[in-house]
Amino acid sequence: MADASKKSKKILTNPLSGFMELLPAEQILFNSMAQTIQKNYELYGFSPLDTPVLERAEVLLAKAGGDTEKQIYRFTKGDTDLAMRFDQTVPLARFVANNYSKLTFPYRRYVIAKSYRGERPQAGRFREFYQADIDVIGDTDLSLQYDGELPSIIYSVFTELGFDRFTIFINNRKIIQGVFEALGVMDQSKPITQSIDRLDKIGTKGVKTQLEDMALTKEVIDALFSFVSIKGTSDDMLTQLENMPVNSELLSEGIEDLRTVLAIIRKLGVPEEFFQVNFSIARGLDYYTGTVYETRLDDCPEIGTICAGGRYEDLASSYTERKLPGVGMSIGLTRLFDQLLLRGLIKSGSSSTSKVLIVPLMDNLAKSLEIASALRKAGISTEVSYVQGKMDKKLKYATKLGIPYALFVGEDEVANGLYGLKDLEKRSQTELTLEGIVEALQKEKA
Amino acid sequence: MADASKKSKKILTNPLSGFMELLPAEQILFNSMAQTIQKNYELYGFSPLDTPVLERAEVLLAKAGGDTEKQIYRFTKGDTDLAMRFDQTVPLARFVANNYSKLTFPYRRYVIAKSYRGERPQAGRFREFYQADIDVIGDTDLSLQYDGELPSIIYSVFTELGFDRFTIFINNRKIIQGVFEALGVMDQSKPITQSIDRLDKIGTKGVKTQLEDMALTKEVIDALFSFVSIKGTSDDMLTQLENMPVNSELLSEGIEDLRTVLAIIRKLGVPEEFFQVNFSIARGLDYYTGTVYETRLDDCPEIGTICAGGRYEDLASSYTERKLPGVGMSIGLTRLFDQLLLRGLIKSGSSSTSKVLIVPLMDNLAKSLEIASALRKAGISTEVSYVQGKMDKKLKYATKLGIPYALFVGEDEVANGLYGLKDLEKRSQTELTLEGIVEALQKEKA
Repeated sequence: MADASKKSKKILTNPLSGFMELLPAEQILFNSMAQTIQKNYELYGFSPLDTPVLERAEVLLAKAGGDTEKQIYRFTKGDTDLAMRFDQTVPLARFVANNYSKLTFPYRRYVIAKSYRGERPQAGRFREFYQADIDVIGDTDLSLQYDGELPSIIYSVFTELGFDRFTIFINNRKIIQGVFEALGVMDQSKPITQSIDRLDKIGTKGVKTQLEDMALTKEVIDALFSFVSIKGTSDDMLTQLENMPVNSELLSEGIEDLRTVLAIIRKLGVPEEFFQVNFSIARGLDYYTGTVYETRLDDCPEIGTICAGGRYEDLASSYTERKLPGVGMSIGLTRLFDQLLLRGLIKSGSSSTSKVLIVPLMDNLAKSLEIASALRKAGISTEVSYVQGKMDKKLKYATKLGIPYALFVGEDEVANGLYGLKDLEKRSQTELTLEGIVEALQKEKA
Repeated sequence: MADASKKSKKILTNPLSGFMELLPAEQILFNSMAQTIQKNYELYGFSPLDTPVLERAEVLLAKAGGDTEKQIYRFTKGDTDLAMRFDQTVPLARFVANNYSKLTFPYRRYVIAKSYRGERPQAGRFREFYQADIDVIGDTDLSLQYDGELPSIIYSVFTELGFDRFTIFINNRKIIQGVFEALGVMDQSKPITQSIDRLDKIGTKGVKTQLEDMALTKEVIDALFSFVSIKGTSDDMLTQLENMPVNSELLSEGIEDLRTVLAIIRKLGVPEEFFQVNFSIARGLDYYTGTVYETRLDDCPEIGTICAGGRYEDLASSYTERKLPGVGMSIGLTRLFDQLLLRGLIKSGSSSTSKVLIVPLMDNLAKSLEIASALRKAGISTEVSYVQGKMDKKLKYATKLGIPYALFVGEDEVANGLYGLKDLEKRSQTELTLEGIVEALQKEKA
């Protein structure tokens, strides 16, 4: 196909549908969000993991079913049945099982990377998407303290991302299961949980209809509704639940666990208005067995869950006989970024990483290049204008990219050691020594 | 497959052959190398680009042939013919063609991301590999200054990665082509170039045999060898070349271009011992048309090229009628990391990002968690030990992970405000106030 370049009909250049591709300004914003998340994960002592995008299909599909099997990108090369990972949890399970003897437990890992699902294209859904996950994996057992630590990380992350009104909703699957046990509907716990989990989406009436369809008695349905309708402060809710005429050991255990988790969250300094018990939070996934979390933006509930997770009793049962309980959470970064941008809740700035464009005013570039090196050594991102032409053209390059400063280096400047630093937004210019410029731009950076 | 967990035969848990997967200590080291590269790319004002891993197969294969077509991971989903990218240049070309009107030229982009090639598995070759690329793309034309800037970036990157002896070899394809023109063997330029490019691998004798097989005259072969055998300082070599009895306009242009590039490199402060003209550097790829680079470690030539690139006249001819010349270079990060680790040239350190493990000495965790929050606010990665059991067990966790410090928080400590900070390597302990601890650990971090 060496003559493709000569064809007049060119190949389509848009990215595949469902694949996010950002222009420089947005990519810079996306990366800065990812970096804030990474920094916070590392501040809590999580170590990075980077598993391959491709796995043996049998590894990825060991526990998968339904939608996942339909959506997975799977193919053969040679005689290997391959697939692209659809989340970060299954590769984590394989990795931990494979390296059990080399890891130190509790194993704390973070990952910020892409996964793939060939979903039907629709607004807000991506076939290639970043997840920013953390998980703590224990060997045989794992203290409930970790369940309390995770919300404090969520709080740190979203606060530093600039959100000041969000709520981490917390529940414990044992509470839900315990209520079912007390009501004698344990055998229908799965459809009931799924139905309750949709309360926010289909409303009280929708859930009621679904529960009636399961042939539950009016008394049971009423009890379920008084359970999920419990409102108030987190502590009040737990007291109200205890006072309900439902009792089971599992329920008491769930209440006790949730109280412990709430106490840790408070001790870690998460302000009261950022977390809230919510008995209707169940999380669709089967494998959560204890604490469950869902975080939403208070002023943008329509975005839905921006971060979710919980406690699971056995991470890697498909790959090892060892019991590896864990607790984790995931930020769907691609979707979150898309929604925030769409609603104007974040705004991209500069299209360049450069803080300053050096504009040589003479043929001899030497001094400009020397200054560029000095600025970079001081940690200031610097570009030199090599574009031929008029001053206007050079400055237009900088303003189009959003480079905040231009620095002029001419013969007079070199002779007297004072250079013109122009603030391209304010359109003001100051004459400074090289040291003065470094100082001014370093201040700008912070 | 929900009962997979009950099967006694477990699924294989090793990653696919040819896919790198690192344990925490090595991953931390890998990430710090990647971060150093990224920081330097940004210091030179390159902006990030993150294209999808999956593309339409026709996009990726527009110009590919031979090995690439054989190695590419290609498959269909629904009725889409898909493939995983095999480099970062083809997606860049598609992106620039697609967003031409939205980009500001010269467009400077960096990318540090994975590509895929289903190569035959062999030592040092990876099927999934990181490339850390930069490219500057011009609209219609692009000043030679950029060709001189790239080696200064290579110099910054590798110096900061801790290498003190490496050489950036530089040549210009016009010089090679010009010599061929002068010798009247322009029609065989491709096989001759490919042969000369292998000089380091197959030696003088091997190249001679290949050239003889092309039915070149003894005079031409001798002239080619006296050309590639020119040695000396970069400037001497250019003078010697000018004094050779070969002349062509292209050759003169190449010499002139190379002189300009050398001058820029010097002005950007790259010390003389880090770059060197080498007339045998041709780069196998067809699309380089001017400056070409290859960087090697002086003390480890067997690692081969650790960074390579050059100037091309037309980036995106498969996708657009516009002429988009560029100059770029690529670090094969996965292979480089593997080789450096294998040869003991880099060593992994801690398996944890934590700088300190807080060990609560009493039942009441409150103060420990409060101190953890304070340390994290000061930018110090901190973990709290929630593991039950003896002190030994808790400290073993820290030493196994390589966490450098343990901080003890007991009732006495809380009462008098002095906490024991233990250096786990030196096994020494000092009593400090919280402010003192922050200061000590921040110093440690730097």
